[in-house]
Amino acid sequence: MKIAILGGTGPEGSGLGLRWAQAGHQVIIGSRLAEKGQQVAAELKSLLPSGDISGADNLTAAQAADVVVLSVPYEAQSPTLDSVAGALDGKLLVTVVAPTRKPKARVWRLESGLSAAEEAQQQLGDATRVVAAFQNIGAHNLKDPAAELDCDVLICGDNKDDKQVAIDLCTDANMRGVDAGALQNASVVEGLTSVLIGINIRNKVGNAGIRITGI
Amino acid sequence: MKIAILGGTGPEGSGLGLRWAQAGHQVIIGSRLAEKGQQVAAELKSLLPSGDISGADNLTAAQAADVVVLSVPYEAQSPTLDSVAGALDGKLLVTVVAPTRKPKARVWRLESGLSAAEEAQQQLGDATRVVAAFQNIGAHNLKDPAAELDCDVLICGDNKDDKQVAIDLCTDANMRGVDAGALQNASVVEGLTSVLIGINIRNKVGNAGIRITGI
Repeated sequence: MKIAILGGTGPEGSGLGLRWAQAGHQVIIGSRLAEKGQQVAAELKSLLPSGDISGADNLTAAQAADVVVLSVPYEAQSPTLDSVAGALDGKLLVTVVAPTRKPKARVWRLESGLSAAEEAQQQLGDATRVVAAFQNIGAHNLKDPAAELDCDVLICGDNKDDKQVAIDLCTDANMRGVDAGALQNASVVEGLTSVLIGINIRNKVGNAGIRITGI
Repeated sequence: MKIAILGGTGPEGSGLGLRWAQAGHQVIIGSRLAEKGQQVAAELKSLLPSGDISGADNLTAAQAADVVVLSVPYEAQSPTLDSVAGALDGKLLVTVVAPTRKPKARVWRLESGLSAAEEAQQQLGDATRVVAAFQNIGAHNLKDPAAELDCDVLICGDNKDDKQVAIDLCTDANMRGVDAGALQNASVVEGLTSVLIGINIRNKVGNAGIRITGI
């Protein structure tokens, strides 16, 4: 698949991109500035010379892709989606966004009463299908594609086929994806990010995660 | 400790009671009707003849206890707390309540915008300290106190000492308690219950749980 990662220059987006490139996908690192996307793409290529990795501005990346991943801070979500308006029509958007603000260990309830993923779906309208995934993984170790991460990925969305694409992307990134229900449930998965940040702080670790047991 | 379990006649409350009695605590099974509490206490005694287990109406149970556990359906939370008004002053309330409604696999956002645990805290006022715990465990296997449950218990509250009491109660019930931050974070932990119900349904299992990794 051709995967664009909007805001793919950060540690999580670039780490996922590297893993997907290693799995054989064509990866486009998107950024507000094309040069920054190209620079990070070049860095990833140096780690994985065989990888099909390029960089572009977010709009160009979104236009070229089959699946678009949104990996920006919550504050940048709405303007980033605006900047690629139209290019997401008919496509699947996998959003990694988890809203946090200081104190980050405290769950942030958005004013809308919705999850960030539902806000994205509202903004984009029905032409784009939105799935939430990868909110609860640490960026730590992502760039070592052989490293198995001791965590599961909870996936929320309203369409089973779209969630299966996200589950397959988890597998390709060497993680297990678990269907966590409707897009509405993303508020819980996004909030878990703050819970895990607090667990990291209190336990003086850097990579607390969750596993689903009993399945 | 003397532990009263309000609504302790259900599978989760009685299962926890049995485990705490086995750990040496004095357990009072509370119910709206004293007879029902006494009946379930007798059943638990037959499983654990050495256990200090009795039954009473909720108010009598709450008055007698050091720590009070609330184990009722969400719809019964407010009337149950009303029925023990005053008896919880100066005490710790550990609430097990997780609001669910049909379809249960969909996270229920309460009208208040709060978690059920925060609603309990608001109703009770500052004289009672509220901690949320045990939302995400299945009742399955609880009555076999030797059975190790493959899940962690997330604990939310605004006071570290109170959370430590809850963590110790987890240990006494043969589970691991993990501090999940402020009481406000209980909305995530309560919502996880719906996520786990959905995971149970989709995977045709009965006991999905969560584990925190990396600590």
